[in-house]
Amino acid sequence: MTGDLDNLRVVLVATRNPLNIGAAARAMSNFGVRRLRVVNPYEAAFREARSAVGASALLAKAEQCENVAEAIADCRLVVGTTAAGRRELQHRLQRLDEGVRAIKRQLKMGRVALLFGSERYGLSNQELSHCHWVMRIPTREEHGSMNLGQAVAVCLYELVRGRKTAPAKTAPGKKQKTPATSGEIERLTQQLFQVLRTSGYVKPRTVAAEEKLRRLVRRMELNGNDAEVWLGMLRQIAWKLGAGE
Amino acid sequence: MTGDLDNLRVVLVATRNPLNIGAAARAMSNFGVRRLRVVNPYEAAFREARSAVGASALLAKAEQCENVAEAIADCRLVVGTTAAGRRELQHRLQRLDEGVRAIKRQLKMGRVALLFGSERYGLSNQELSHCHWVMRIPTREEHGSMNLGQAVAVCLYELVRGRKTAPAKTAPGKKQKTPATSGEIERLTQQLFQVLRTSGYVKPRTVAAEEKLRRLVRRMELNGNDAEVWLGMLRQIAWKLGAGE
Repeated sequence: MTGDLDNLRVVLVATRNPLNIGAAARAMSNFGVRRLRVVNPYEAAFREARSAVGASALLAKAEQCENVAEAIADCRLVVGTTAAGRRELQHRLQRLDEGVRAIKRQLKMGRVALLFGSERYGLSNQELSHCHWVMRIPTREEHGSMNLGQAVAVCLYELVRGRKTAPAKTAPGKKQKTPATSGEIERLTQQLFQVLRTSGYVKPRTVAAEEKLRRLVRRMELNGNDAEVWLGMLRQIAWKLGAGE
Repeated sequence: MTGDLDNLRVVLVATRNPLNIGAAARAMSNFGVRRLRVVNPYEAAFREARSAVGASALLAKAEQCENVAEAIADCRLVVGTTAAGRRELQHRLQRLDEGVRAIKRQLKMGRVALLFGSERYGLSNQELSHCHWVMRIPTREEHGSMNLGQAVAVCLYELVRGRKTAPAKTAPGKKQKTPATSGEIERLTQQLFQVLRTSGYVKPRTVAAEEKLRRLVRRMELNGNDAEVWLGMLRQIAWKLGAGE
């Protein structure tokens, strides 16, 4: 997938605020997408945007294009993005997750352009006319309009979501914990029971209480390490209770 | 799902830049999440953040909390967020998509807190110790650190992703015990800590020990009934330890 992502071109069209271009660059870098194209930005000095934290090299290498046609000329698939509420769209509209599936297939074969419109108006009909189809981020109808940098982040997240290289469930170097054995759990239960008798929480020889306690301890589903820690704590408490008598 | 989302609390901890609080509010509104809690923000005037385009009412109603414990007290599940590269994490780490599946299940039963740390350092170990587990946004190892508003957008997108197609699924006949609230768990933790100090298991004022203990107790994943039983046992032990001195 990492190699495939080099076929993706993120195209920001007529962006007004250079901080949003920087934020888009940062999100691209976060998710491993490197090629940014900027069409007709409102402020020429966008390359200095401080918001491109950790992505200034990516921003410096952004290609600046005169118009959408130039920005997508070498791409085999061109996809527009939109939020809720654009009812007048002439294009086929895909849900983001479905659209990204199609994009992933295309990325194996050639370049794909993903277009984001201006903060105020989104992509114009003229700009959209270059697109094969349009993806919709599932925002609420009542408040569809997203921040541009956030929209880019969400689309690129969908693209890398569930990729093979995602890290294992446990932190690296952190050993998966083995559940405690029944023997360990029973030693813990007995120690707890003794502490509770000594402190007067349960009366001596109450079988029902002991069973209830056994179930309670098992519901903790302790791993081996934690069972040992609990046993140590209870032993110390038992010792102190004994010493105090 | 819309109803369920009202059980979600987005908690921004020690946020430095009020624009990021505004951006988070906007993303929340885009995806239909309404309840924002702000812990100890760097700038008090965050409610005026212009970045909350279309979400100023949400921002105005944000609850301001003194600390994490207060912000999560009424929540039954507390989930932290992190980007790549935090290798020293003591917590169970889930991929974002897997974690969100678990969050969705919990949202049907009670309140869930989703924590985001400061722009510079993320969540501290002390803040993380309130979490049951942590979700990782699948950014690149080489550039893991995301913009805060973008991180919130990506997490909330995952939450509403494909919601039209996902039918509500509850295992028939299986009674699910309601998890204990964080307030209940924290009372239990404090009581345990006191007992362990009194019995000499931990030295007074050892912050590391308290964090370790907080994580230990959260790993029990207690339901409300069991938490009450444990608290009762510990109170009795504490009383006895005090009486015996």
